[in-house]
Amino acid sequence: MNFLEERIIRYGVIKEGNILKVDNFLNHQIDIDVIRQMAYEFQRRFKGKTVTKILTIEASGIAIATLVGLLFNVPVVFAKKSATANCTDDRYVSEAYSFTHKRMNKVLVSKPYINAGEKVLIVDDFLADGEAAHALIDIVHQAGADVVGIGIAIEKGQQQGGRKLREEGYHLESIAIIESMDWKTQTITFRKQEKEAIENANIKASWV
Amino acid sequence: MNFLEERIIRYGVIKEGNILKVDNFLNHQIDIDVIRQMAYEFQRRFKGKTVTKILTIEASGIAIATLVGLLFNVPVVFAKKSATANCTDDRYVSEAYSFTHKRMNKVLVSKPYINAGEKVLIVDDFLADGEAAHALIDIVHQAGADVVGIGIAIEKGQQQGGRKLREEGYHLESIAIIESMDWKTQTITFRKQEKEAIENANIKASWV
Repeated sequence: MNFLEERIIRYGVIKEGNILKVDNFLNHQIDIDVIRQMAYEFQRRFKGKTVTKILTIEASGIAIATLVGLLFNVPVVFAKKSATANCTDDRYVSEAYSFTHKRMNKVLVSKPYINAGEKVLIVDDFLADGEAAHALIDIVHQAGADVVGIGIAIEKGQQQGGRKLREEGYHLESIAIIESMDWKTQTITFRKQEKEAIENANIKASWV
Repeated sequence: MNFLEERIIRYGVIKEGNILKVDNFLNHQIDIDVIRQMAYEFQRRFKGKTVTKILTIEASGIAIATLVGLLFNVPVVFAKKSATANCTDDRYVSEAYSFTHKRMNKVLVSKPYINAGEKVLIVDDFLADGEAAHALIDIVHQAGADVVGIGIAIEKGQQQGGRKLREEGYHLESIAIIESMDWKTQTITFRKQEKEAIENANIKASWV
């Protein structure tokens, strides 16, 4: 079990309707050790890729994306969500259905912040049906830029987003992939991954 | 002029109605160099304080707060905003008027994430009338915790939030304080501060 899977087992709360709450360390309170390890793990898994920009979506993706941007030493852009925004000349707009809020959200990025030819690494906290990821990919393509990879903290493997993105040929890396979870027994199983996450040792010392 | 004031002069856009847009490096695209310098500057200005938690509010505060949390090596909590949330037993609720959205927002923090006796450093990107800052202070006090300081990137010195917070005795540090700005001429003047921001030199090398 890697560091993130351990944290999910210890602090995650499963709610009815296939909902996993990780407010303790990711979505409300942010455990610096956990997201620092995630950033290093994404650096390892996307090693050798040219990355000119990190793209995420507000709000929970911002903390992880910031540390990934710090490691890759490139700017971070967070897409904005709006239920009501109109299309204008100065921004790219896509759409994603929000299961949390049960509504269609517009996803917006101002045009100056993704340029044609850029190499974009998409980073987010969760992947379920891939709605947000596909909206971000759509925006990168509207800008004439390339998606070099997609780094996800927690993939809900029972939903279809991960399978679709891999079939579409994207380099998707999820640090924890949930195979199944049961809110009645509060049990989770994870998909075995080929690449094992790096160990915690000596990471902290090298950052600050 | 310090690093943030320079960035505001170069990339900030002043809009009618006393609005300053810093989407280029803070509120939409995040310039890693800028927020890294901010984090070091907050560390310097709050040196010697005991800090057990960083508290900010979604979404733009999260990136800065994450790096401050990394430097202080303490967890970060981001308060959530909601137009509709109800009070429940498991969360602290306060209110703040949003000038951007022209409405009253609820500000929410789940109770487990701020404990009695904690030493909380509040961090945010903007301070204008102090609505968000006062809501966060209210929540810290509801939790029986202490506010050890308030670190702001950009204070709008023409509005009353900064004056009020200083009169109330809070240790408020704003890296850039706007004295006046004019959208017609796109000119900004900053308040002279006693403490000069640290220089950029050798900061990058020590982080990654």
